[in-house]
Amino acid sequence: MASKAKNCNISFTPHFKTHQSLTIGNWFRDEGVRAITVSSAGMASYFASDGWDDITIAFPFFPGMIPALIHLEKTTRLRLFLHNPQDIELLKQQLKNPFRVIIEMDPGYGRSGTHFRDFQTIEKLLDACEKCNMASFSGFYIHDGRTYQAKSPASAADHAKTVLNILAALKSDYPQASIIFGDTPSASLLNDFGVVDEITPGNFVFYDWMQVQIGSCSLDDVALFCLLPSAQLRPEYEKLIVHGGAVHLSKDSIQVGDRISYGQAVSMDSSGISLLDGMYLSSLSQEHGILMVPKGREVTDSVTICPVHSCLTANLHDSYITTTGKRIEKRILS
Amino acid sequence: MASKAKNCNISFTPHFKTHQSLTIGNWFRDEGVRAITVSSAGMASYFASDGWDDITIAFPFFPGMIPALIHLEKTTRLRLFLHNPQDIELLKQQLKNPFRVIIEMDPGYGRSGTHFRDFQTIEKLLDACEKCNMASFSGFYIHDGRTYQAKSPASAADHAKTVLNILAALKSDYPQASIIFGDTPSASLLNDFGVVDEITPGNFVFYDWMQVQIGSCSLDDVALFCLLPSAQLRPEYEKLIVHGGAVHLSKDSIQVGDRISYGQAVSMDSSGISLLDGMYLSSLSQEHGILMVPKGREVTDSVTICPVHSCLTANLHDSYITTTGKRIEKRILS
Repeated sequence: MASKAKNCNISFTPHFKTHQSLTIGNWFRDEGVRAITVSSAGMASYFASDGWDDITIAFPFFPGMIPALIHLEKTTRLRLFLHNPQDIELLKQQLKNPFRVIIEMDPGYGRSGTHFRDFQTIEKLLDACEKCNMASFSGFYIHDGRTYQAKSPASAADHAKTVLNILAALKSDYPQASIIFGDTPSASLLNDFGVVDEITPGNFVFYDWMQVQIGSCSLDDVALFCLLPSAQLRPEYEKLIVHGGAVHLSKDSIQVGDRISYGQAVSMDSSGISLLDGMYLSSLSQEHGILMVPKGREVTDSVTICPVHSCLTANLHDSYITTTGKRIEKRILS
Repeated sequence: MASKAKNCNISFTPHFKTHQSLTIGNWFRDEGVRAITVSSAGMASYFASDGWDDITIAFPFFPGMIPALIHLEKTTRLRLFLHNPQDIELLKQQLKNPFRVIIEMDPGYGRSGTHFRDFQTIEKLLDACEKCNMASFSGFYIHDGRTYQAKSPASAADHAKTVLNILAALKSDYPQASIIFGDTPSASLLNDFGVVDEITPGNFVFYDWMQVQIGSCSLDDVALFCLLPSAQLRPEYEKLIVHGGAVHLSKDSIQVGDRISYGQAVSMDSSGISLLDGMYLSSLSQEHGILMVPKGREVTDSVTICPVHSCLTANLHDSYITTTGKRIEKRILS
């Protein structure tokens, strides 16, 4: 992703909410990354503690963030998502240092941000930035979660292009503004980013079964798996009870064909990762997972699961174990 | 629940997987509880560290548990769920102290355990216990998760009665066996437990929006809520973006009428807890929640949410705050 951004001559401000790990953060430093994106003030504090000093908090500002921001601004240049002109004045009163303002664009389906055609609010926000000697307008940000519902790379890319059109119109109205673009499917599938100046994808660091289904990546690109102990085979139901439930994987699911899957079994060896066709988690309770096991399949002591949504799965663990057995610490609990 | 068990002259071995807190565990000690239920060897170790010395691990035994059991048996009398006669021999080789065996009954829908009509396996397990000088058969356990899908107290109670009939038949075949019964809806709704000797509910310690919907409890019985900051009102969509997502609430949902709810807004004051009708979480991403806010409703700085599934919500936090501001520590990450 770093190379792609470089080749496309766009900035790369990766979202760190997926891995939430200082060690993995350093891998990005090695790629030249100096500015990062997070999803809460708490997560910003975690990464600031390791010297990250240019942080975008990609969540709508609310006054409860202020105590954390007062602490953060001592060491960190902040970029904040503002949707209310009065909040710019409030931040001026509460903070001591300059801050940058991003106007998040709602692409029209009611997520956070300002509707991309609500020029009245956009103008008020730009005005408030201009009048405030501490705030500088940084650009427009868009994250369209609808690409996550795409069922093919073509439909995800088509959707991304619709978003690029919205952004092109904004750029033509506000040529000085940076255009910042968020989601992993778009960042993975596009090769021409049009007017986009900066990308902030996060999930791509691990990818997951959902991204494989969308077509953002192949199974070989996935870098996060859960190893679940096999607890009890129920051959008469073609099921294996595994020790792995909602507290290990999260409860995100995805429809694959006519089945709802909470995770896909794979096998892994030196030649790569292979799909174990028909072996998927059909339900999860707190600690139990039910893995479908078609008749005649071999069952081993543990099952490797490609999780549906790596961001939520990673959030449930205090560390990662690499394939060579090294433990990588991460932040626990958001 | 402790009083109910006492009044019905049945044992009470509460499941501690919902609260996962040593402090809350002590509240049970105050009620005379000496034996508890947990859902993993790791959770058993957590409670054993606080002196709990009679612990049932309500999860199908698998060999990967053995290292933890070797450590646990030094201080703790263990009751284990066995479904495979060979595992009884394996445990005899690996452990030094007597252990008790529970045969978990699958009530016929393919969950963990042994099918309640699979007398061949039941007999083999009883035989293996008899032949093993370290294993003693403790009883039959049944947890029927289907009561969680009930839409009314009457249908949950009807379902519970079907399960009681299965247990009555078992008791007549094995009159010496203890009959152990698991789920919160059944334990909450039944007043006559028939042949049941022991109950092990867990969720009732907090209850949640799902239990209110089933009718296991009233809203006033719920004891776990999430206070979420209001981040951005989107009146044109009748939505409020709150800082509260899948990493704070989990992603369990419930159908209420024709809506899928990820949590219900309530108001709370000295007179009690009131439903904020029509204000519910309609979707969750990692950190964002979308709360539906019908036109004309007042929006405050934060919203109190009754979670859909308190077990999974509690699992995502490192402590509880009481209504008087006291922090209660808990176990983090399963």
